Amino acid sequence: MSSILKGNKISVSVFGQSHSQSIGAVIDGLPAGIELDFEKIEAFMARRAPGRNSFATPRKEADRPQILSGISDGRTCGAPVSVKIDNTNTRSRDYDELKLLPRPSHSDYAAYVKYCGNNDIAGGGQFSGRLTAPLCFAGAVCSQILEKKGISIKAHIYSVKDVTDEGFGLENLYDDDLRLDPFFPVISRFKGEQMKTVIEIAKSAGDSVGGVIECAVLGMPAGIGEPMFDGIENVIAKNIFAIPAIKGIDFGSGFEGTQKYGSENNDPFTVKDGKVVTVTNNHGGILGGITSGMPIVFKTAVKPTASISVPQKSVNLKTMKEEELKIHGRHDPCIVPRAVPAVEAVTAITVLDLVL
Amino acid sequence: MSSILKGNKISVSVFGQSHSQSIGAVIDGLPAGIELDFEKIEAFMARRAPGRNSFATPRKEADRPQILSGISDGRTCGAPVSVKIDNTNTRSRDYDELKLLPRPSHSDYAAYVKYCGNNDIAGGGQFSGRLTAPLCFAGAVCSQILEKKGISIKAHIYSVKDVTDEGFGLENLYDDDLRLDPFFPVISRFKGEQMKTVIEIAKSAGDSVGGVIECAVLGMPAGIGEPMFDGIENVIAKNIFAIPAIKGIDFGSGFEGTQKYGSENNDPFTVKDGKVVTVTNNHGGILGGITSGMPIVFKTAVKPTASISVPQKSVNLKTMKEEELKIHGRHDPCIVPRAVPAVEAVTAITVLDLVL
Amino acid sequence: MSSILKGNKISVSVFGQSHSQSIGAVIDGLPAGIELDFEKIEAFMARRAPGRNSFATPRKEADRPQILSGISDGRTCGAPVSVKIDNTNTRSRDYDELKLLPRPSHSDYAAYVKYCGNNDIAGGGQFSGRLTAPLCFAGAVCSQILEKKGISIKAHIYSVKDVTDEGFGLENLYDDDLRLDPFFPVISRFKGEQMKTVIEIAKSAGDSVGGVIECAVLGMPAGIGEPMFDGIENVIAKNIFAIPAIKGIDFGSGFEGTQKYGSENNDPFTVKDGKVVTVTNNHGGILGGITSGMPIVFKTAVKPTASISVPQKSVNLKTMKEEELKIHGRHDPCIVPRAVPAVEAVTAITVLDLVL
Amino acid sequence: MSSILKGNKISVSVFGQSHSQSIGAVIDGLPAGIELDFEKIEAFMARRAPGRNSFATPRKEADRPQILSGISDGRTCGAPVSVKIDNTNTRSRDYDELKLLPRPSHSDYAAYVKYCGNNDIAGGGQFSGRLTAPLCFAGAVCSQILEKKGISIKAHIYSVKDVTDEGFGLENLYDDDLRLDPFFPVISRFKGEQMKTVIEIAKSAGDSVGGVIECAVLGMPAGIGEPMFDGIENVIAKNIFAIPAIKGIDFGSGFEGTQKYGSENNDPFTVKDGKVVTVTNNHGGILGGITSGMPIVFKTAVKPTASISVPQKSVNLKTMKEEELKIHGRHDPCIVPRAVPAVEAVTAITVLDLVL
Repeated sequence: MSSILKGNKISVSVFGQSHSQSIGAVIDGLPAGIELDFEKIEAFMARRAPGRNSFATPRKEADRPQILSGISDGRTCGAPVSVKIDNTNTRSRDYDELKLLPRPSHSDYAAYVKYCGNNDIAGGGQFSGRLTAPLCFAGAVCSQILEKKGISIKAHIYSVKDVTDEGFGLENLYDDDLRLDPFFPVISRFKGEQMKTVIEIAKSAGDSVGGVIECAVLGMPAGIGEPMFDGIENVIAKNIFAIPAIKGIDFGSGFEGTQKYGSENNDPFTVKDGKVVTVTNNHGGILGGITSGMPIVFKTAVKPTASISVPQKSVNLKTMKEEELKIHGRHDPCIVPRAVPAVEAVTAITVLDLVL
Repeated sequence: MSSILKGNKISVSVFGQSHSQSIGAVIDGLPAGIELDFEKIEAFMARRAPGRNSFATPRKEADRPQILSGISDGRTCGAPVSVKIDNTNTRSRDYDELKLLPRPSHSDYAAYVKYCGNNDIAGGGQFSGRLTAPLCFAGAVCSQILEKKGISIKAHIYSVKDVTDEGFGLENLYDDDLRLDPFFPVISRFKGEQMKTVIEIAKSAGDSVGGVIECAVLGMPAGIGEPMFDGIENVIAKNIFAIPAIKGIDFGSGFEGTQKYGSENNDPFTVKDGKVVTVTNNHGGILGGITSGMPIVFKTAVKPTASISVPQKSVNLKTMKEEELKIHGRHDPCIVPRAVPAVEAVTAITVLDLVL
Repeated sequence: MSSILKGNKISVSVFGQSHSQSIGAVIDGLPAGIELDFEKIEAFMARRAPGRNSFATPRKEADRPQILSGISDGRTCGAPVSVKIDNTNTRSRDYDELKLLPRPSHSDYAAYVKYCGNNDIAGGGQFSGRLTAPLCFAGAVCSQILEKKGISIKAHIYSVKDVTDEGFGLENLYDDDLRLDPFFPVISRFKGEQMKTVIEIAKSAGDSVGGVIECAVLGMPAGIGEPMFDGIENVIAKNIFAIPAIKGIDFGSGFEGTQKYGSENNDPFTVKDGKVVTVTNNHGGILGGITSGMPIVFKTAVKPTASISVPQKSVNLKTMKEEELKIHGRHDPCIVPRAVPAVEAVTAITVLDLVL
Repeated sequence: MSSILKGNKISVSVFGQSHSQSIGAVIDGLPAGIELDFEKIEAFMARRAPGRNSFATPRKEADRPQILSGISDGRTCGAPVSVKIDNTNTRSRDYDELKLLPRPSHSDYAAYVKYCGNNDIAGGGQFSGRLTAPLCFAGAVCSQILEKKGISIKAHIYSVKDVTDEGFGLENLYDDDLRLDPFFPVISRFKGEQMKTVIEIAKSAGDSVGGVIECAVLGMPAGIGEPMFDGIENVIAKNIFAIPAIKGIDFGSGFEGTQKYGSENNDPFTVKDGKVVTVTNNHGGILGGITSGMPIVFKTAVKPTASISVPQKSVNLKTMKEEELKIHGRHDPCIVPRAVPAVEAVTAITVLDLVL
């Protein structure tokens, strides 16, 4: 069941490997009669696409989504919406030597054991970040439906290595002047420049850096979600970890909140515009697994790209001897900017399933 | 589906409210023919039970699990193992005023909206930490089955507020001399004493503190888990967030790893005793959602107990006016020590489901 | 996952063996704030209870359901409703010899292989028809909620052996004068007497008979259900087969419809009271897996009770030699009348899940 | 979740409408390293394809499955196997008038209500029998894997209208001389000719006929399956009802068995070749939801094709007035022969999931 995000209403089946003929997705359970804005979908997907700027892998893909089914007269018709994206620019020979020489902190070794060596290693196979392209398609579709319900999703680069942006607060989240650059979204432009410098330094050293993405969902009504195993945190976390390189998630004040006293971390209630709200949002919009009506806010940790050019130690799985590995290929020195739309996309799918 | 941890093989249905007649669980899918050691189960559950020491709520419950079904001639018989624990020591009147005056950072308000005011507020109802008692029963059962497969689970208090214990490393994890106190498990006894002081200070101020729990799974074979949506991280995260007060989780170097270069965070492969292993374990035993054969290691954030004695601001849901709230009742100044067995239990259930 | 009826909203976990301390169920996902009529629930359960008349097993059980959780101030509170029914009248020694001598057409042999001989054989263990008692509790609860939505469920004994009752038609289904006896529900009282005679004859011969139950759901709105794998037929069939002794199900004209021409079996549309309806109901209220607004009608086959007193051939699983088996114990010569409320109950749970 | 057959290991997402650009499927959870015989897959799919003989719709489709992902070096690689089949020969204008004039006993009206008129009516949209093409692809793949495990699936036309073939028995099932014609599989060639005559008569009258398909699974080990909700009958029934026009299913002696005494219907145990077997197979290989080791045998009812040329009564959904409907288009006078491979395919997917 690995390839299926299975919600109560919405399910998304993702397919493809980095270098298979196509990658794609089947989205089941969308409401019928929705007119989709394909320009907006492509603009969303462009944010994830490679080759945009110097911080990303130079591999270029048209990444044009082709609808196979589910749309009739320009509207969803109740049948699953399926999409494929062809893989046109593949260079499989880059990966031949990796078959027996697993890349450190990549899926190679674990996949080799699981699939008894039959896994498709080229480009990372099914573990490739490229598989987030169909996820972004699905997320863009779900976002459009959410918008009609007054729910919007925003995410920004919270940190790259040790450079930290401002965080989402109850003020800037509702600030109409908050403009997040689609390709390098940060709140503080100044911090953004510092992040770019950090990435450039890593790149020039053949190394990589990671970071943290912060994501918010605005407009969620209170009372959505379930206690215990199907709470908002449970399902968002489960789905966010589907994005390659994600290694952590916390909600509201999260790990930082463990440093506070209860009296500091608790969010007092007050009344605003006739509605019950909280003065602060350390709970990240979720109490007991259920929405409080405040913005859902979470942070998620993106590890430094595992593919780096500097030589690394690995083990030849045939000879069982240590060997030095030098990864050629094309790689992102920092995957964080391109992971932002993937985080938004997965959140959109998850949230749409919750509110339907 | 809120009350069901649904795995591929093992499912656990939890039932009860803090002050209902009983709480309990139904465990489906256990292998037949397993002889259970009930003394060990009760010892495990005792670690979670209240009233043990001055850091915990003085409420006392016998917490004796009573088997209703699933055991025949002292062994599992293939039928679901169901257990109930009676609620004997309830004081519902403590909670009457809370019905319309939601406690900050508790589930009260979200549950009030979701259940249109019909939720059982007494003792936190179904959101109570007391519901982790049947989870601990299930976890103790699963742990015993895992042990026979050579898989063990260890957890300790990684931090309380700003006092941090040593972390699990590849050395101390396999150290036979590592003795973790069942009721206040820390690696460094010295740090443990400091934590207790911090808790005492919070308690005397009518306040509370949170912390972080670190958990490790030893003996996992490589190749377990699935890519994308059903990876190890996905399912552990989904289930861990079922524990009340959990607000974050990260695996391996997690959030801290985002501060490193890829060349520092990557784990080189080497050969040890004829097996492929990694020199470091920043990946926390999981690559691409699949086990690498290294210990699974994760940390999880426990927020400061929301119930505190100091007066707080709330809103009367009838008058829609702000009111001061003073919580009486009995509460833990720090839930972290009692949450440790719950984290172990949920991990045991999740891991058993993965290896069956 | 055997013991869990898992719907989108409603899940029911059933537990217990015929002779375990208790049997019971956990019902998750019920709406909050529902006031339950426990007298009606007990009356419904009484229809299934043994020892009612000479057609049923003389085993008597109080079968009093005890609520363990989920009810607060007499109403559902959003927490799972859990119930237990104690097993008071057990005679395990009746079953000792069966452990190694499987009863023909019982689950004994299959369970012996599956559970490696660890299955609880007493009274049929978890395969016992007794497990339908908690199902009936859950069904009675769901029926009450359905009634408030204008949806009702009726079932009758369609046939016992070769004696066939009148079928449900679009006329008698809406006939207020249609009175179905709760303990032996038939449309034609005359046919009912014939059925009883057939059962008496089988009983006196130490033999058993089966039959067919017909069930209808009235008041379903059109447009409920999903195409393909989650249609109304799919989910009703899946759940009905959970009832022991059920070996077949068909919808509308079903198997009989295969004898007709399309022009006879098709149901023409017409307009009645401003609504689109069909003139006939050979489609059983379901088109393409989705409700048409006509009554859902299905028939389900109940095999002759496997437990009979006449000697039968079996194989001793230890010696692997044929042996004659003579079943003592207490058994129903015809399970059909007591299976009627079980069919209604499972249908109620399934339908409530569909309309929520 | 309508489009997903979700097993424990194997899931199949089906997509497409009759006249969308493509139809297809994503198969998740196949073992890695399996070499697929594509000629055999195409031969299997050809049995379902239209235009083969005079009993089937004259619409012709190349129906060539194109692999999009999941195969690497000719073998499954652990990634989902996805396939698309292009729809080349579509004539949408045939269906324009049907939008507001639902065809009796078709999904049109139910889909119209469910999807608020946005459903794709052309060719039956997502309800078309054409969607069984990707199911057959998936079934052919699963069959090949089952064969390597010694499990085979056979199905034949048990009846067309009132002409009935011989049934599967414990003798002919293992008879190597049993040759079932791939395009019109019957045991008795004589009965087959009578069936063809019946179909020709219906065809010439612009009418249609239905029938019954019998399917058997040979080589299943004993002890597979679960009691109650996840038994073999439950899951086979759930999945078989995904095939359009299926209205009933029974296992073993099924509905006919309800006419027998228990002493006739029970299957005595005996020993054969050192194995416990039953003398007869009225239980259809399933006891208590679990395999007994005997062949799984079930029958399934296929209604007469709803699309017929003779004029029928319908209701114009705009004017709400009765209108006469005359269906043009191309249709099968009897869908039963082409449904046989679909039944085999769904059975193969279901059984593979059970034994993995």
